[in-house]
Amino acid sequence: MENVIDEAKKDIIEKLIAGGELEATVALLKKQPTVEVAEIMEELMTEEQVLEVLSNFDQENQGAVFSDFDKDLQLWIFEHMDKMDFSDLFSHMSSDVRADFYQELEKDQQLELLPYLKKPVREDVIHLSSYPPETAGGIMSTDFATILSHMTVAEAIEKVRKDAPSKKMVYYIYVVDKKMKLQGFITLKDLIMASPGDMVESYVHTEFTYAEVNEDRESVAQKVERYDLVAIPVINPLDQLVGIVSHDDVIDVIRAEHTEDFEKFMGIVPDKEDNDYLDTTVIQHFKKRAVWIVTLAAVGIISGMIVHSFEDTIYSLMILALYMPMVADTGGNSGSQAATVVVRALALGDVNVGNWMKILYKEFRVSILLAVCLGLLAYAKILFLSWETDIPEAYSLYNIAFVISSALSIQVVTATVIGAGLPLLVRRFGGDPAVAASPAITTVVDITGLLIYFTIATTFLL
Amino acid sequence: MENVIDEAKKDIIEKLIAGGELEATVALLKKQPTVEVAEIMEELMTEEQVLEVLSNFDQENQGAVFSDFDKDLQLWIFEHMDKMDFSDLFSHMSSDVRADFYQELEKDQQLELLPYLKKPVREDVIHLSSYPPETAGGIMSTDFATILSHMTVAEAIEKVRKDAPSKKMVYYIYVVDKKMKLQGFITLKDLIMASPGDMVESYVHTEFTYAEVNEDRESVAQKVERYDLVAIPVINPLDQLVGIVSHDDVIDVIRAEHTEDFEKFMGIVPDKEDNDYLDTTVIQHFKKRAVWIVTLAAVGIISGMIVHSFEDTIYSLMILALYMPMVADTGGNSGSQAATVVVRALALGDVNVGNWMKILYKEFRVSILLAVCLGLLAYAKILFLSWETDIPEAYSLYNIAFVISSALSIQVVTATVIGAGLPLLVRRFGGDPAVAASPAITTVVDITGLLIYFTIATTFLL
Repeated sequence: MENVIDEAKKDIIEKLIAGGELEATVALLKKQPTVEVAEIMEELMTEEQVLEVLSNFDQENQGAVFSDFDKDLQLWIFEHMDKMDFSDLFSHMSSDVRADFYQELEKDQQLELLPYLKKPVREDVIHLSSYPPETAGGIMSTDFATILSHMTVAEAIEKVRKDAPSKKMVYYIYVVDKKMKLQGFITLKDLIMASPGDMVESYVHTEFTYAEVNEDRESVAQKVERYDLVAIPVINPLDQLVGIVSHDDVIDVIRAEHTEDFEKFMGIVPDKEDNDYLDTTVIQHFKKRAVWIVTLAAVGIISGMIVHSFEDTIYSLMILALYMPMVADTGGNSGSQAATVVVRALALGDVNVGNWMKILYKEFRVSILLAVCLGLLAYAKILFLSWETDIPEAYSLYNIAFVISSALSIQVVTATVIGAGLPLLVRRFGGDPAVAASPAITTVVDITGLLIYFTIATTFLL
Repeated sequence: MENVIDEAKKDIIEKLIAGGELEATVALLKKQPTVEVAEIMEELMTEEQVLEVLSNFDQENQGAVFSDFDKDLQLWIFEHMDKMDFSDLFSHMSSDVRADFYQELEKDQQLELLPYLKKPVREDVIHLSSYPPETAGGIMSTDFATILSHMTVAEAIEKVRKDAPSKKMVYYIYVVDKKMKLQGFITLKDLIMASPGDMVESYVHTEFTYAEVNEDRESVAQKVERYDLVAIPVINPLDQLVGIVSHDDVIDVIRAEHTEDFEKFMGIVPDKEDNDYLDTTVIQHFKKRAVWIVTLAAVGIISGMIVHSFEDTIYSLMILALYMPMVADTGGNSGSQAATVVVRALALGDVNVGNWMKILYKEFRVSILLAVCLGLLAYAKILFLSWETDIPEAYSLYNIAFVISSALSIQVVTATVIGAGLPLLVRRFGGDPAVAASPAITTVVDITGLLIYFTIATTFLL
């Protein structure tokens, strides 16, 4: 059995290229999955060789392989290929990938390309480029197949055969009326299983899910996931079918949203454009991260004020200062963990805001267990670390250790409940729970932690 | 155009159920997507009504709707349905969902069900249940279609028509030899487009990707994503086709791995079983979180020792104690952000360990910008907060503020580089970069931060 290109085959291709055997190379590459072909070509060939080999593929493969090239190589090819040839290749790309490429061109490059395109391709590209990238319209393709409902099954199959070039998704065939209004869909499997003489009408699924062209791409992804679809139709405000979003685009959306959630949770402002790490400039990285981190440092002024208001306490019992960071860190960690768990449970739909009592009660109980463990550990730690520390006559180290570790335990409970509660609160008011981010929670529980710490210390020790 | 069930329709169904019109309810529900039907039934009916309505669906729909029920309702039905009827329903479930349900039964419930199952179903369930849940075998289904390569296109279509019940995935048809060894695949679209008299052989894709039965599910998901597949074949060590993993299962895997990454990054030990938040007991939640958080609190003893070794410094310049938490927090935040960015870039394949010099250099430059901002902010903060603080005669507040904010700036740079470097280091040694988790980084940069802070302070102030 043969799998995708392995090292041995790569070796052969490398030798063929070195020997100038471009025809044999093309013959060998043609059978491989296009994503592999693109990778091999990028790795082993000069740009000129890529151009030459590419022109030996048929136009359909040219379009597919080109789609899988890096942005830089794509631009090089665009600039060095005969524009007439390029427009043929371009016409054979998937409509969504084509529109994305077009949008990455400079204004004057776009104008250079447009006259070479056939009218339907030109209109398609301009149409698809008009939607914002985070909407259904921005990720949809127009490579779908349609039939009219008054056809017979045999006629429908014939229609699909006739106007389905290889890039078209035909596993779902959309049923429209003469004004392109979407009536329903039929699967290719339905067609195969049906008797050729039957009317399509009796097999059409008229209860189906669709996306609206301006719908958020994340909501589109959720629908595809919920109904286990291969593709979802996209309609415009006139109920006309304008595109489809397929399962592979949905996976891309889920990955991108995943990164966005992760970043938000760490107080990083997500990119609109899903840029690569290395393609993002230092200044862009800085901007993404500085907003929150600087804001939080500014809010940290409140913690500073609290510490200062207890300056006298600290002066009279220095040992308290030594354990401030421990209490703050432990609170930050347990608060962030609770927030993580709740943010994910909300994202996965395991819980919703209506469950808030259950969630907070569960977190409360979890935090009691954590508080006991961490409190005992802190008590032991203080005895171990501070047995030589100078303590004013009036106090015993056991008392102090007990008070500090009690404060830490209470802080663990408070921080956990706050960490779990903040994302729920943000969601309740319509926000994205992930913005109740880890640095934000650290900052908030720092404030509560210091208040708890010093209040307990002054009450029980001074 | 009709979409999925809306409130109005739900209202009608509710009234029908209240009026005891179960037949009309069934007639109305039958057309809806099964996931909707399951939800509506769970929401509006008693368990007894669910059982009665369910028995009015045909067996295929019974299996599909049952698959979408909650675990609790599934178990209730299993216990209250006639076992013979249940075995029919069970046989009509997707093979992977069926095997998952079977594994959730108690041992004695499994033994109760087995005798009612037909031999192929029984063998299939036992076979699929034998693979660990995190492997290709653990998520695959056996609902695939096969043909032999020496058939004509017309014969192949006929074979697919004959043995493809509705749950079977037929968009890819796998070509096998007589020993079930996988030779390649052909798409249903290929078959439709081909001339009926042609041999299947000439259309078979012999260069294809497959998964091995023991392969990690994440690697399977990556292959499906890379090649934009509707499904990927799974083979055993004898190269025989034993199952397929489809695009919708891949989305589930990606979501689960996403949660796992997120949790790991927050120092939470991920569940093996992907349990719901609310289904997880308090003790389980506690165990998942305690491991790391307690370990880190224990490691925190090192920070404690550092603070204690500088006790004299703190005594002679109390103000230093007040700003320890600020330096620690800022370092923790910038380190965690850097780690987040690098972990995601590694997960998305934007970068690999080989790029470590580029990454660290980029992070270094980003951190310089952050350090300047945060340093200036800290300087202003100290002047604002401490203008009334008692400072020994020998020092000026300006000097002290300058030294503390310089230490903070250096800490931001160190923490960022450590935060970016740790995940790279873990990956380099074959580990999962996400374990270079946020709490771990906080703990590590606490130690470096305190060392930097006190070293600089003693050098320049005392």
